[in-house]
Amino acid sequence: MFAQTPNPPYTAVIFTSCLSDDIEGYDIAAAEMVRLAQEQEGYLGIESAREKIGITVSYWCDESCAKEWKQNVDHALVQRIGAERWYRQYRVRIAIVTRDY
Amino acid sequence: MFAQTPNPPYTAVIFTSCLSDDIEGYDIAAAEMVRLAQEQEGYLGIESAREKIGITVSYWCDESCAKEWKQNVDHALVQRIGAERWYRQYRVRIAIVTRDY
Repeated sequence: MFAQTPNPPYTAVIFTSCLSDDIEGYDIAAAEMVRLAQEQEGYLGIESAREKIGITVSYWCDESCAKEWKQNVDHALVQRIGAERWYRQYRVRIAIVTRDY
Repeated sequence: MFAQTPNPPYTAVIFTSCLSDDIEGYDIAAAEMVRLAQEQEGYLGIESAREKIGITVSYWCDESCAKEWKQNVDHALVQRIGAERWYRQYRVRIAIVTRDY
């Protein structure tokens, strides 16, 4: 369940979201996002939990790999025409992990 | 519920944890960690969710503020002699947020 990341530095994409009441199709799309990540070059792992808000952190070799995943996810989401319906609010933060323990 | 963070760069501390079966006293300590954060200089916000694993991301003006909080939390936890009992496993990652949207 924990991402097995190498020694820093590597890239983290912190995705914080709040779902709307209309989440039809969301579960399938969320699974698709994870599948797309796992197939992507530079993928290191993903960690996810949801209560009032959802937090998904995906880890990447570098920012360009993270960016490529984002483009694929955007493309997949647009195909499903879902993202704007499912999320009441969301925030994406791209970060460089410098230390871990 | 979302952290209201300023324009990057700022620091994120990503704390991923898996609780043990013995979590007596944990809730109080978790609330104490948040309270300590909010009182700390350089605190920007905190986001948290738990399902199978827990993810708490706290945001800080810079790494030295994050470090000071860690020291205070460690001190508080040691006083409670709890951390090693509560967590089956945990991982802390210090990261510099370079972009957000």
